[in-house]
Amino acid sequence: MVYLSLVANQCMNNPSATILISANQMQQEFTRILLKEGFTTEKALRCAEVFTATSVDGIYTHGVNRFPRFIQYIRKGFVQPAAEPVLKSSFAGIEQWDGRLGPGPLNALQATHRAMTLSTRYGIGCVALSNSNHWMRGGTYGWEAAKAGFVFIGWTNTIANMPAWGASDSRLGNNPLILAVPFRNEAIVLDMAMSQYSFGAMELAQMKNEQLAMFGGYDKNGQLTTNPSAILESRRPLPVGYWKGAGLALLLDLLAVILSGGLSTAEISKKEVEYGLSQVFITIDISKLPNHSSIPALLEAIISDYLQSLPETDKNVITWPGQRVLQTREKNLATGIPVVRQVWEEISRL
Amino acid sequence: MVYLSLVANQCMNNPSATILISANQMQQEFTRILLKEGFTTEKALRCAEVFTATSVDGIYTHGVNRFPRFIQYIRKGFVQPAAEPVLKSSFAGIEQWDGRLGPGPLNALQATHRAMTLSTRYGIGCVALSNSNHWMRGGTYGWEAAKAGFVFIGWTNTIANMPAWGASDSRLGNNPLILAVPFRNEAIVLDMAMSQYSFGAMELAQMKNEQLAMFGGYDKNGQLTTNPSAILESRRPLPVGYWKGAGLALLLDLLAVILSGGLSTAEISKKEVEYGLSQVFITIDISKLPNHSSIPALLEAIISDYLQSLPETDKNVITWPGQRVLQTREKNLATGIPVVRQVWEEISRL
Repeated sequence: MVYLSLVANQCMNNPSATILISANQMQQEFTRILLKEGFTTEKALRCAEVFTATSVDGIYTHGVNRFPRFIQYIRKGFVQPAAEPVLKSSFAGIEQWDGRLGPGPLNALQATHRAMTLSTRYGIGCVALSNSNHWMRGGTYGWEAAKAGFVFIGWTNTIANMPAWGASDSRLGNNPLILAVPFRNEAIVLDMAMSQYSFGAMELAQMKNEQLAMFGGYDKNGQLTTNPSAILESRRPLPVGYWKGAGLALLLDLLAVILSGGLSTAEISKKEVEYGLSQVFITIDISKLPNHSSIPALLEAIISDYLQSLPETDKNVITWPGQRVLQTREKNLATGIPVVRQVWEEISRL
Repeated sequence: MVYLSLVANQCMNNPSATILISANQMQQEFTRILLKEGFTTEKALRCAEVFTATSVDGIYTHGVNRFPRFIQYIRKGFVQPAAEPVLKSSFAGIEQWDGRLGPGPLNALQATHRAMTLSTRYGIGCVALSNSNHWMRGGTYGWEAAKAGFVFIGWTNTIANMPAWGASDSRLGNNPLILAVPFRNEAIVLDMAMSQYSFGAMELAQMKNEQLAMFGGYDKNGQLTTNPSAILESRRPLPVGYWKGAGLALLLDLLAVILSGGLSTAEISKKEVEYGLSQVFITIDISKLPNHSSIPALLEAIISDYLQSLPETDKNVITWPGQRVLQTREKNLATGIPVVRQVWEEISRL
């Protein structure tokens, strides 16, 4: 699957190797396969929708390119299509759910909606999910909550893939953190892993024989480098902000484990592959705030000031987190989602 | 005051220019001055305690070295010693308070305790504070909540001091984010601003004629540099994780403004100095979780694994966020707090 993902990444930048698939067609194809794998109709539709929307938004690594591996994990039993999350405990605005190794995106969507329900009642709600699976694009849950008018703060732990600061071996996850706020009937969504570059991005740069724009990690001699091959060899990606991102990754894991009672990065890393994750979903129902009607204007004022930033060069474009996603979404909805032919052929055979 | 802070930073590394002040003596001295400035006895004691504890913990820039400027801001009317925060709105677990330009540390402590009260009732509580002042060390509120058994997530906005990604002018605050969890009757506390280095740290490196260990910002030609003078000249500190930290700073400002109804970084930056800040305090009462009694063991297991990281060299020491603070605290409580003689003399004259 790593090889396929590499091919997929490479071909994404080579239009001759890609075909355009409409969102409708992609969703139908995913649904067909998920039904075959034992999903109920409702779950197949929802899960297909998440993978499709992620691809429409241009996050191919966690959408169409990842779909075959998702199916593989189902067949290996890491992901249980029929599993439903169950409530483990509840105290007013906080709840713990056991994801029972169900499909990550479905568990995470349900947790997001449950947090929204809690926050409608308590202003703020927190759902912590243990024993879940990779939620694919974390931003999905930020978009989901924020488009419905909620503030979203969420994160997941991962398998160990990043060193502590000053260490040479990886004992931290890159634990993506998502913050989202409603904006113009859409959302501003920050979706950041704690490593500066994903392994996928580094593999892509390696195949294109390109350097990373910024330091992305260490070579095997412990020197910071922009050479993706050197980082892939050392397996030492750089935490965002050096010691700061490493510290934040540790805290997010601690919090996820405390709140969910689930597995830590250290525990997950004892498994053969990444499953059984711990995740946190916090939402705030901003319709309960007295300044609710003035919030859109407050946000417009902030974004307006932000966009008045002086670009460093005429090549720099100042964007807010999620803005480019909206542009890609519009384009892909209009003209189709670019999919690597080999990936689509593999999916068609599933 | 900038000059004094420089002297303070420089002398901190020059023992002959420092004197040792006991925590008791420092707190008495701060209390004396605050009483003169119109604080009630109770408020003077609490505020003096925050500045002293911050100094005991080794965060001198936001403790003893900052105290004279705090008094200056009181005298100029930016900080109102008699102001009490007032409740603006309440909906179950979320509340908005108007800080009325009261002393930042007192407002922030009150907001922290109010969030704790809310979370004891609702599991999770969120207090958003508008119209407040610099809270000094953000970690103070993380330690406060976590030592009492609560998870803490909080942040503040600041005056603009960091560029958007790809911009040459500063329109983002470095908006410190604090995450804290209870640990061994103490806490693990991450206290991170969104700029890689504080201006204070860069001024110190400049005076010591040292390079920063890592890139800390851009020179005036837009090149990343470890030269602190070049960054102080360009006023372009580096966001942690480049575009990621810039995005996180923007989201923290948006969230602080939405939740508090207070001023944004853009609005604060129109003032002559930094005051009228927006802050968020979220706590979770983990005693309400069914796995409460197992949490200490879960955290020990995570930290134990973390500390098994292989140090890159024999000079690297792997520590968790807050661990060094505890070491400094122990030392300073035992032998006294090192204070720059000039700073202490200035304080004595207040």
